[in-house]
Amino acid sequence: MSQHSSVTRPRRLSDISHFEREVDVLIVGYGGAGVCSAIESARAGARTLALEAAGGGGGTTAMSTAHLYLGGGTRVQKACGIDDSPEEMFRFIMACAEDPDEEKVRLYCEGSVAHFEWLVSLGVPFKDSIFRERVVFQPTDDCLLWSGNEKAWPFRELAVPAARGHKVQMEGDAGPLLFRVLSEAAAAAGAELLCDTRACALIEDDAGRVVGVVATHFGREVAFLARRGVVLSAGGFAMNPDMLRRHAPELLTPGVVPIGNPHDDGSGIQLGSSAGGAAVHMDACFLSVPFYPPSSHTRGIFVNAHGQRFVAEDSYHGRVGDHCRRQPEGRAYLILDDACYVPSEGGREVIAVEASIEALERALGMPESALVNSVAFFNRFAALGEDPLFHKSREWLAPLSHPPFAALECSFGKTWYPAFTLGGLGTRASGEVLTEAGEVVPGLFAAGRNACNIPRSASGYASGTCVGDATFFGRLAGRSAAASPPWK
Amino acid sequence: MSQHSSVTRPRRLSDISHFEREVDVLIVGYGGAGVCSAIESARAGARTLALEAAGGGGGTTAMSTAHLYLGGGTRVQKACGIDDSPEEMFRFIMACAEDPDEEKVRLYCEGSVAHFEWLVSLGVPFKDSIFRERVVFQPTDDCLLWSGNEKAWPFRELAVPAARGHKVQMEGDAGPLLFRVLSEAAAAAGAELLCDTRACALIEDDAGRVVGVVATHFGREVAFLARRGVVLSAGGFAMNPDMLRRHAPELLTPGVVPIGNPHDDGSGIQLGSSAGGAAVHMDACFLSVPFYPPSSHTRGIFVNAHGQRFVAEDSYHGRVGDHCRRQPEGRAYLILDDACYVPSEGGREVIAVEASIEALERALGMPESALVNSVAFFNRFAALGEDPLFHKSREWLAPLSHPPFAALECSFGKTWYPAFTLGGLGTRASGEVLTEAGEVVPGLFAAGRNACNIPRSASGYASGTCVGDATFFGRLAGRSAAASPPWK
Repeated sequence: MSQHSSVTRPRRLSDISHFEREVDVLIVGYGGAGVCSAIESARAGARTLALEAAGGGGGTTAMSTAHLYLGGGTRVQKACGIDDSPEEMFRFIMACAEDPDEEKVRLYCEGSVAHFEWLVSLGVPFKDSIFRERVVFQPTDDCLLWSGNEKAWPFRELAVPAARGHKVQMEGDAGPLLFRVLSEAAAAAGAELLCDTRACALIEDDAGRVVGVVATHFGREVAFLARRGVVLSAGGFAMNPDMLRRHAPELLTPGVVPIGNPHDDGSGIQLGSSAGGAAVHMDACFLSVPFYPPSSHTRGIFVNAHGQRFVAEDSYHGRVGDHCRRQPEGRAYLILDDACYVPSEGGREVIAVEASIEALERALGMPESALVNSVAFFNRFAALGEDPLFHKSREWLAPLSHPPFAALECSFGKTWYPAFTLGGLGTRASGEVLTEAGEVVPGLFAAGRNACNIPRSASGYASGTCVGDATFFGRLAGRSAAASPPWK
Repeated sequence: MSQHSSVTRPRRLSDISHFEREVDVLIVGYGGAGVCSAIESARAGARTLALEAAGGGGGTTAMSTAHLYLGGGTRVQKACGIDDSPEEMFRFIMACAEDPDEEKVRLYCEGSVAHFEWLVSLGVPFKDSIFRERVVFQPTDDCLLWSGNEKAWPFRELAVPAARGHKVQMEGDAGPLLFRVLSEAAAAAGAELLCDTRACALIEDDAGRVVGVVATHFGREVAFLARRGVVLSAGGFAMNPDMLRRHAPELLTPGVVPIGNPHDDGSGIQLGSSAGGAAVHMDACFLSVPFYPPSSHTRGIFVNAHGQRFVAEDSYHGRVGDHCRRQPEGRAYLILDDACYVPSEGGREVIAVEASIEALERALGMPESALVNSVAFFNRFAALGEDPLFHKSREWLAPLSHPPFAALECSFGKTWYPAFTLGGLGTRASGEVLTEAGEVVPGLFAAGRNACNIPRSASGYASGTCVGDATFFGRLAGRSAAASPPWK
């Protein structure tokens, strides 16, 4: 883990005596965003070089399941009978973010089918099939998954629900396959890659334009000139405790498992900030409490230490996790009865099993009648197929009336929560990095988790948004950089 | 309201042909932080000039009641029989922030008595008296007020409670008096002030050191050289909708009343960021629902749209406001009975009055028994002098049993919430501005709401923290800048 990155303030062009390479577009970080940026840049005719700190490309995209959040009527959606339109997708994403960037969301939704076709044209395989069970990741090579909060309240009332999680065709994690196809396309287009090369400072000319990067390569400092632009695509900061402490301290809570690769240390964001780029939504994160499968646990109720319910249990696990951590002291339990409890390997710890709700309430240390009231209230309406508080779907509603009753530990700080960061540099849709005053930093672009585009909140996250966003806006940044007027 | 500030990226020293003035320390923004910075800088022998965008100094400090959050055993605390120590004050502040900066909190607490004495030495008057009622601002010239969450749970268990809100002696708002005394001290020390002068860019030398400021003065662009340092103390960004949208979008919710002066437009933060300074906790804000006086309303219970309680009603109004806005859809009601309801001018709207809790529940559109259960639960324990959920103090506990019952509208978005921002540039305790990678930006300092020091969260805010912090760390920044090695 690179706890302290070595990023320094920008160097002056006049201080650079020798350039190792002079190219048009320099890409910092070669994961999903970087490789897509490289493909588009090279295809536009720009001399393109990517620098990667690791010994090989791939980043966190290559570690992922390779879900891409796409819709609006893709080939797979049509084949599976999923009705979708760019407008419904737009409504859904707009409802999910606390501060959506409308222009970016519109571009993403209106360009989603074309982005899918572009991936297919490169050779990324998607099967015309859907996996209908409620899981975090489908274990099969099926493509579509209901991967977010589309069917949960209030979202289902704000946009017509559609399954939009598109997994690349392969059993298990398809990230390596996705990245291999993308990197082959980049190489075929003429983009070059230099690994074991860690960017540590931007280079600015006298007018303040970013014109290159200083990097370390096996201990040696080397400089690279970028005549048209530098694209930052070096991942989030889940692995940088200093940045987490300042921006997203809850990710340092015991039990939080940062998801990513060791180079997700925020160095790309640091580089952009060093040139006056302003980061936004740095507190935003994905922070989840996966409690299904088994899907039947969705029939249980989440309660806090006061016995109060606080979220629709048929929400996406990330939304549930975000709500759990916001409860008093982060305490949250999933209450199940014998009809819906299923033991699961690696599942949440069962911390109490009792013959009655009264006894469970005592075992959890709750005040008398706190949980009893909540369960009675839930059961009364569940028997009618209603959930007046959180509108859990009828398919998951049944009274909790079959003893024994169990409580699963879901408290934030007491059990594992996978997490990663969503904040990054403020950018235009083109990828141009913006200052705090809204000015463009000339010559500088960002994408993937170095920017802040579609995914912006834990409560509205859907699986596939990060890889979908990184590949989509990575392409835009590459095209923008390649089309920038050359320096001098 | 200066919606779009005109801050641009740093200018190069070589591009500046003429300096209007050459000084040691240049202070940008002349409110509470700026004036204290000026006093210390000038007293240290540095040639000191402050630039102020408005037609006169004062900033938001001069608009305030002039509470300073001080403690550890001040003269006033002792005279009023309030036991306090730096250690208890430290424990309390550490418990209040989600991400406290321990070094700064320790400095602030250990230096608090001396800071009080320093203010007294300048001529700031404080009366040896305490105002014991539960109010937002004391209308009298009394000094001490319980101005935070000290006596509320869980804080009272984490630190020995002490009243620490010190109001400058004057009936009503004492901000103008406080600022007059401070600005006279600055002038006496030799600090100069240039008003109607808006900083719009920093100046950097070839090594990247900040060496001055470009400003506009009645439409003319003028440059100022700062041989030792530039101190940014130009206020928060409550008045900049663009920055709010990016960083604290909830402050754009209907009903939110930004507290501050029109020049709290974030331009100081923008200047710091333009030189690579990294802002932190930009989502943090003060966001309050003042619901007392009358203090008897503390006996009521806050419930959300599900009839659930969610906060100890004897908490500080800012903590209550923060909890209200986090409820589903921001809906929150204060439920009162006839024994505790008192009409108040400018109070929250009474949206329902009913003869029974059942009827009130219906009037509020809550599901059957949602509110009835909560009130019954509260009443049962309140009769015993207990609040097992939120541990409201016994002095405020009584069953709600005297009809009629009223609901006051406290929903976020439906009633007025005063608010201001707390995020700012990351700094060392000295005021030195830090980059995202933790490097110092040479020549640049920040204080007040251009930095992020003691106040960091709505849920832990206490009245007086902003002015206390701004004056305290403003002094440190002024001393640091004056002690910096001169340029060239």
